[in-house]
Amino acid sequence: MSDCSALRQQILDLCAAVPPLDEAAGRAAAARQDTLTKPLGSLGSLEKLSVRLAEISGNPRPRLEHKVVFTLAGDHGVVAEGVSAYPQSVTPQMVANFLAGGAAINVISRHVGARVVIADVGVVNDIPGDTSQLRQMRVARGTADMALGPAMTADEMWQAVAAGIKLVEMEAAQGLDIGATGEMGIGNTTPATAILSVFSGEDPLTITGPGTGLSADGVSRKVEVIRRALAVNQPDPKEPWEVLRKVGGLEIAGLTGVILGCAARRVPCVVDGFISTSAALIALHACPRVQGYLLAGHRSTEPGHDKMLELLGLQPILSLNMRLGEGTGAALSFSVLEAAAKILDEMATFGDAGVDEKL
Amino acid sequence: MSDCSALRQQILDLCAAVPPLDEAAGRAAAARQDTLTKPLGSLGSLEKLSVRLAEISGNPRPRLEHKVVFTLAGDHGVVAEGVSAYPQSVTPQMVANFLAGGAAINVISRHVGARVVIADVGVVNDIPGDTSQLRQMRVARGTADMALGPAMTADEMWQAVAAGIKLVEMEAAQGLDIGATGEMGIGNTTPATAILSVFSGEDPLTITGPGTGLSADGVSRKVEVIRRALAVNQPDPKEPWEVLRKVGGLEIAGLTGVILGCAARRVPCVVDGFISTSAALIALHACPRVQGYLLAGHRSTEPGHDKMLELLGLQPILSLNMRLGEGTGAALSFSVLEAAAKILDEMATFGDAGVDEKL
Repeated sequence: MSDCSALRQQILDLCAAVPPLDEAAGRAAAARQDTLTKPLGSLGSLEKLSVRLAEISGNPRPRLEHKVVFTLAGDHGVVAEGVSAYPQSVTPQMVANFLAGGAAINVISRHVGARVVIADVGVVNDIPGDTSQLRQMRVARGTADMALGPAMTADEMWQAVAAGIKLVEMEAAQGLDIGATGEMGIGNTTPATAILSVFSGEDPLTITGPGTGLSADGVSRKVEVIRRALAVNQPDPKEPWEVLRKVGGLEIAGLTGVILGCAARRVPCVVDGFISTSAALIALHACPRVQGYLLAGHRSTEPGHDKMLELLGLQPILSLNMRLGEGTGAALSFSVLEAAAKILDEMATFGDAGVDEKL
Repeated sequence: MSDCSALRQQILDLCAAVPPLDEAAGRAAAARQDTLTKPLGSLGSLEKLSVRLAEISGNPRPRLEHKVVFTLAGDHGVVAEGVSAYPQSVTPQMVANFLAGGAAINVISRHVGARVVIADVGVVNDIPGDTSQLRQMRVARGTADMALGPAMTADEMWQAVAAGIKLVEMEAAQGLDIGATGEMGIGNTTPATAILSVFSGEDPLTITGPGTGLSADGVSRKVEVIRRALAVNQPDPKEPWEVLRKVGGLEIAGLTGVILGCAARRVPCVVDGFISTSAALIALHACPRVQGYLLAGHRSTEPGHDKMLELLGLQPILSLNMRLGEGTGAALSFSVLEAAAKILDEMATFGDAGVDEKL
């Protein structure tokens, strides 16, 4: 299709346009940290995070006033293989719950003062209830079963990635100092595990977990399904877009777009748990420069998440044994990141406060 | 002194009055968690923290609206032995910085919506600047040098503990849903390490760290000073109040009072880093029931902190390589704790939201 090749080119151009980090802004932030009224380095990760936020934004004293969680929903043909503990009907029901403000991501986002953007990139069934606040960007009614062939057509994949980029553009128009990835899609730990297997070389057996709560038998079945999907599709880690198309998902493609869109605008992007981080793996391989714009909100209990963070070179901010998704771990980490930025900006220096320095 | 024995009895009575946790409230909270729209247990530590907050408060849906950091300052005679990287003049200067709102604890407390109570329990020099917001509760102008004999008289110690209890009473009158411990006192990692050595049986060599930034030579000197203090005073771990009197500090005694005061009122108390946690060790041994009311805000990089948390049976909420004190790690953890409480209170149930349950 012609649309597809034009979209593809726009996305590749955006990747090429991701700027390097602003090292001068980072050095200025680090120098200021060393003048603030505390022993050198005593705020540990908060100091390092503040420097990274400066490098990303190009502002030596960045603020995180406008915080946005991008929670994208999509369904997965592979659920026909029995890989999830919940029925597919839960995807649109939970999207409706997000829109009504009753889910964990709503509670946490209100708590940290973040906006939540809910987008349907590929849910099978229509979303019930009031959808006036939904970003309707459905590319298809779910993916195809990746155990039988590619999850998406190229057209579907590029459209889903473009939807994520578009969401970032829309939010940037209202103010966007930091973004976070979130997702909802029954069955989506299966494609996320397949993606990790491709980039890590690990056999699915060693990295497949229970997702939302599979039994041991269910996990064994999921391992076999992922192995079949990899055998049928033969995804090549050197072709990250093909990995996404073959064994990814529509919401994962959308989140890849969110990450690229943030990086291209010098906006830090906090990845959430296992599924979100699989999108970050695609983005990293498609566009290595995005690494500098990524922050890991938390360490999930899903078994492969540590391996993903290692491949991305990221240290998680929180480690609270969470495994919900939706963007919950990333949104909660906004509080720590905003504290890091405020410390850099608001603390008094030794000179200002008249405090004696080290002996 | 007669004052001393009356105060002592009041404090021992308060210890005896700390109530057991409310297990019924905890069970109600746990039961509600299992009805909320998320896979069972998927919010990990947030769920467990919410249950503990219910057990502490006796409210199955607790809220953390009124949050207070108690930052107590005191000086230490042992600084004469050369155990700190900073001069003693910094204690009152930093207290002035707290009162002016320029320190890390001020920035973090504003960020999380907490009040900060600054109290002078035993600073040597007068606090410069505007002290109208200072709680002036000075018991003595610093402790005596514990390397030569007991750091405090019994009278001083009981007065300092009572000051902490009094601070909690004053804040409770304005609303107090959760407290946190914080401190400022040049040299205070030295008494904190001595306290840990007494209760853990570890030689000071294995648990002594650089504090605010001692050189390797400085750390060696500090180890020797702590060994001398222990040899001279012979503190017995079975007599926790004597441990506090002999090798503690005025602000550490005050924080012991803060912890007891919170527990007696069913208010959760978040301990901060190494010095605050040494006060929790005293409180735990003086009154084992306080354990249930304690939460560990973070894991400090000070080498002995992990051992302290192990002795207290606490898992740290955050692990951000911080080692500043003032209450900073505990205050930052308020954000996570408040999120945990809000999730329990505000999330929709499967029934309310019309979401299908597990297959």
